[in-house]
Amino acid sequence: MDKLSSLCFLILSIVTVLVVSRLWFPIFVNLPPEDMNDEKQSFEKHISLMSKAPHHPLDPLTVQEINKVRDILSSYEPFSNSFPTIHSLALEEPDKSLVLSWEFGDPLPPRRAAVVGILHEQVHVLSIDLELHRVIRHTANPTRGYPMITIEELLSAFDVALANSNVQKSILARGVKLKDVKFLSPSPGWFGKEEEGRRFAKLQFYTLQGTSNYYMRPIEGLTVTVDLNKQEVIKIADTGKGIPIPRSANTDYIYNGEKEPPEIKQINPISIEQPKGPSFTVENGHIVKWGRWEFHIKPDQRAGMVISRVMVRDSETGELRNVMYKGFPSELYVPYMDFDEHWYFKTYMDAGEYGLGLLSTSLVPLNDCPRNSYYMDGVFVDGNGKPYVQENIICVFERYAGDISWRHTDTLLPNAKSGEARQKVTLVARMTSTLGNYDYIIDWEFQTDGLIRVEVGLSGMLMIKATPKEYTENKDNEGFEPLVSENAIGVVHDHYITFYLDMDVDGVNNSFVNIDLVKEEQVNKSPKSSPRKSIYKPYKKVAKMEDEAKIILSLVDPSEFHVVNPTKLSRLGNPSGYKIVPTATAASLLDLDDPPQIRSAFTNNQFE
Amino acid sequence: MDKLSSLCFLILSIVTVLVVSRLWFPIFVNLPPEDMNDEKQSFEKHISLMSKAPHHPLDPLTVQEINKVRDILSSYEPFSNSFPTIHSLALEEPDKSLVLSWEFGDPLPPRRAAVVGILHEQVHVLSIDLELHRVIRHTANPTRGYPMITIEELLSAFDVALANSNVQKSILARGVKLKDVKFLSPSPGWFGKEEEGRRFAKLQFYTLQGTSNYYMRPIEGLTVTVDLNKQEVIKIADTGKGIPIPRSANTDYIYNGEKEPPEIKQINPISIEQPKGPSFTVENGHIVKWGRWEFHIKPDQRAGMVISRVMVRDSETGELRNVMYKGFPSELYVPYMDFDEHWYFKTYMDAGEYGLGLLSTSLVPLNDCPRNSYYMDGVFVDGNGKPYVQENIICVFERYAGDISWRHTDTLLPNAKSGEARQKVTLVARMTSTLGNYDYIIDWEFQTDGLIRVEVGLSGMLMIKATPKEYTENKDNEGFEPLVSENAIGVVHDHYITFYLDMDVDGVNNSFVNIDLVKEEQVNKSPKSSPRKSIYKPYKKVAKMEDEAKIILSLVDPSEFHVVNPTKLSRLGNPSGYKIVPTATAASLLDLDDPPQIRSAFTNNQFE
Repeated sequence: MDKLSSLCFLILSIVTVLVVSRLWFPIFVNLPPEDMNDEKQSFEKHISLMSKAPHHPLDPLTVQEINKVRDILSSYEPFSNSFPTIHSLALEEPDKSLVLSWEFGDPLPPRRAAVVGILHEQVHVLSIDLELHRVIRHTANPTRGYPMITIEELLSAFDVALANSNVQKSILARGVKLKDVKFLSPSPGWFGKEEEGRRFAKLQFYTLQGTSNYYMRPIEGLTVTVDLNKQEVIKIADTGKGIPIPRSANTDYIYNGEKEPPEIKQINPISIEQPKGPSFTVENGHIVKWGRWEFHIKPDQRAGMVISRVMVRDSETGELRNVMYKGFPSELYVPYMDFDEHWYFKTYMDAGEYGLGLLSTSLVPLNDCPRNSYYMDGVFVDGNGKPYVQENIICVFERYAGDISWRHTDTLLPNAKSGEARQKVTLVARMTSTLGNYDYIIDWEFQTDGLIRVEVGLSGMLMIKATPKEYTENKDNEGFEPLVSENAIGVVHDHYITFYLDMDVDGVNNSFVNIDLVKEEQVNKSPKSSPRKSIYKPYKKVAKMEDEAKIILSLVDPSEFHVVNPTKLSRLGNPSGYKIVPTATAASLLDLDDPPQIRSAFTNNQFE
Repeated sequence: MDKLSSLCFLILSIVTVLVVSRLWFPIFVNLPPEDMNDEKQSFEKHISLMSKAPHHPLDPLTVQEINKVRDILSSYEPFSNSFPTIHSLALEEPDKSLVLSWEFGDPLPPRRAAVVGILHEQVHVLSIDLELHRVIRHTANPTRGYPMITIEELLSAFDVALANSNVQKSILARGVKLKDVKFLSPSPGWFGKEEEGRRFAKLQFYTLQGTSNYYMRPIEGLTVTVDLNKQEVIKIADTGKGIPIPRSANTDYIYNGEKEPPEIKQINPISIEQPKGPSFTVENGHIVKWGRWEFHIKPDQRAGMVISRVMVRDSETGELRNVMYKGFPSELYVPYMDFDEHWYFKTYMDAGEYGLGLLSTSLVPLNDCPRNSYYMDGVFVDGNGKPYVQENIICVFERYAGDISWRHTDTLLPNAKSGEARQKVTLVARMTSTLGNYDYIIDWEFQTDGLIRVEVGLSGMLMIKATPKEYTENKDNEGFEPLVSENAIGVVHDHYITFYLDMDVDGVNNSFVNIDLVKEEQVNKSPKSSPRKSIYKPYKKVAKMEDEAKIILSLVDPSEFHVVNPTKLSRLGNPSGYKIVPTATAASLLDLDDPPQIRSAFTNNQFE
């Protein structure tokens, strides 16, 4: 049985950053307009979002569909007196088999919405059929999972915290005016059974006085825990007296070219140009076609961007072949390394708690994406269940970076002096997410040779812990906290971004194969044997159980990782397949029974 | 004593490739013209190479200087009867202290040439002073090292081998015409004391019949060992009878767009454009200035391209600060994994044996490098000591790949809706080297934020071992040889490229610091202690001895690696420094006492 569940999780790219840090800043960019019938968009869109209809089984819910879901919920009996707050509302994707058998021209499989709401502190998980116009599944108070956090409940929690007289006293005692106060709500994590079943936020405060970069000006040692369901303060931890607020000087981040000394030459304009326009098309707003590639892109509240139904045209037959059913960032986990009362809990899970899509920001043409980019809007849902549009959160473009896709010169041959050299042109689908101080940039890059590359960039500002220290004391052979400015420590942490890859190479029957490279020594040496003592050989190990695909990478025990279709053999008998190449990775150093590691057990291995 | 020798070797990027392989093909692109006074170049060059004079202590030897060296050697008494064959001839760089104290306008330090020659089977290592017009140092038969291999002696060895009647018989018996035979001379490596002090080539043969890609058509199992000094056949190993030559069908690599099925859309023209031209300058042919950066580039026979005197302008004072004295690929080591008599010895050291610069090829404008590139020629020396020009072997250009250098959006602030987003523009210096079937692409990329990135690309064709097999037999849990086509195995191997980095951060007094990330568990838990069980902390470990900078990377025992100047402290007391970030790396699996591993001991660790 060399078959493995096609659900293959992969920690594809993990970046360990030492002196930068990270904090939650839970505000999205385009606040929902009061009424979606107001045409707010100032420029013409490829697709009129107001009238858009779904064309593909995986197309996200449209504005009209979301309004319909809201209608259905409003008239649903359990909610007839009071409408729940909506914590997530999105397409419930049809079964994979339905999607795979669907062809253009066929009617769409039933359109359904998956909804998570809260009413009177009760969680409701619902499935709604848009054609049947009714709720078809309803679970109240499920035993697993928590609803996503909404911006509305955090803003409300901030009001509740700031109205507390003890909180006010503490802030004013630091010399900060209440009007300058900004808040952040780092993910509180989960620390033991007494926190089970409770939803709360831990609010921390900053001053905007003297800078736009308030991240640099924490009011250290003040943490207010607010029960999100009850919206009441349940704990004030105030231990930071005597810790100064780091200064504001030189902390701003707005670009001002005049700051550069005259000796530094400015860079001339530069751009990627395509005189005949781009060579890709986007059909019905979601199907991207470029060269041999064809795939579906959709914005997603949680993952930010989901790539589905990836197919590549065979170079000989011209027929489309399946490569991947679905791929997306499944979680973004950022644990900080500090036992301090105000820091120990900071173990963000940004995708599941706040949503990479909900926190996406509008891309800035020519700066965030090159000329000739195609921009895609996201349609998301606010806490009241109303749809709103986040403009330009995905861009698709062709990249030429001056690189070479293939070259060879062979001067033994006549007339081959200049050789062959081919430009490397790729197609990129990009989304960004502003998760507090950090901006993540997630690219899916498709190459003409069949390679798919996922790249994650990290930008933004540092996360600071205030300290009385003004001068570093990092001694040799001692642990230290990196001092990045006067009174400012950059708390050590990791960024783990894990990717879900459902590979479907030439069909759904795929296996995970570990090609283990094993040292072989030459034994029983005869006079005629090789002068060489050792080599290594690849060993093919097909995973029989999911556990065999849980892998901790090791430089000294190396492997390749293939996803193959054992039923589709080449004329040589090799199965068709893709190689999965992890690049920058990191292993967690936390104890396996530490609460953050229990919660993020998906980072125990680099493949899961 | 936290000072470390500034000679810091780094295995920066090591690529493990499973199913591709590699073979030596020792022909360079531009054969030396008979007389350099013939103006062969068909287009105007930025610098007329014929009249060029050196302007910087590190500028390579000019055509005129090389001719002068030849004159000096010709009249040198030991060579008065017979001129040695020249195996390398290049600038002997002045002492670092002289280079560092030199300023533009000063006279150049004495210009010297380092020469390795062979005469009557004796090796001569010479140092020649061009101003004194004489040999100032001469060592005959040094006890360490071997001269580089020249193209002339390999071509001659091929003639000797092909003239051998047993070799002819063996080739004809395979049905190959002698006129179709091409040869390769894989590095023979070093296998024990009986090979000490001998210089030989192991020639192998291919047929060009039916394809331009003769790499796919080996005459397997025929290896002819030729003594390079004596130019005589010393051994014929002929064990390949019955092994077919793989077929020629579909092996050609010349691009033909018509092969694509009509369903595949072609890609429109795309380019990087700069309406105001590039923003970098190249002064005197070697000093590159761009943004804050300033550095010296020179082509080098062995390393291909050497980057020296890298400085960056301080963003506050506008003053130039030292970053790196010198950086280049120090070796390119490619061991194959096969005990077979015709394969065990294939353990290439391409830089030291053949020369990445000597085997560089002319870059093809718009395909190998984008528009607005600056191209640099190499001046090298043939076996007779005569200079010749390899055109366009280095290009320098500005890259814009549609990427973001920095972005942040903060919607808590008024009027900040669109946020900040900045284009990422970098400067790239590129060289390529065609080492047999493989083309290496080596880029040094300079960023506006101070980062320097070294990237190595690998292109070209597969290296094949012929086999009677036509169908794969890779069984689970068994070692295998990958079958890549009928009768063709891609022999497993590694590519190790090591980089020499002489960092001079703010001066020559630099230390290597291991920032070790160490797990810390919370002990003696009190009721008030943290709910968190574990964190990790950075520990600063300054290398006191070179051995402490020999490092095997481990995912589960991670570190950062800093090169700092402990005498240049910031206002916070942190030393100025650079972080060295190894990316794709591999550990050798060979026995430490295997002859190839003894010779390539520099790959025992990832830092040396």
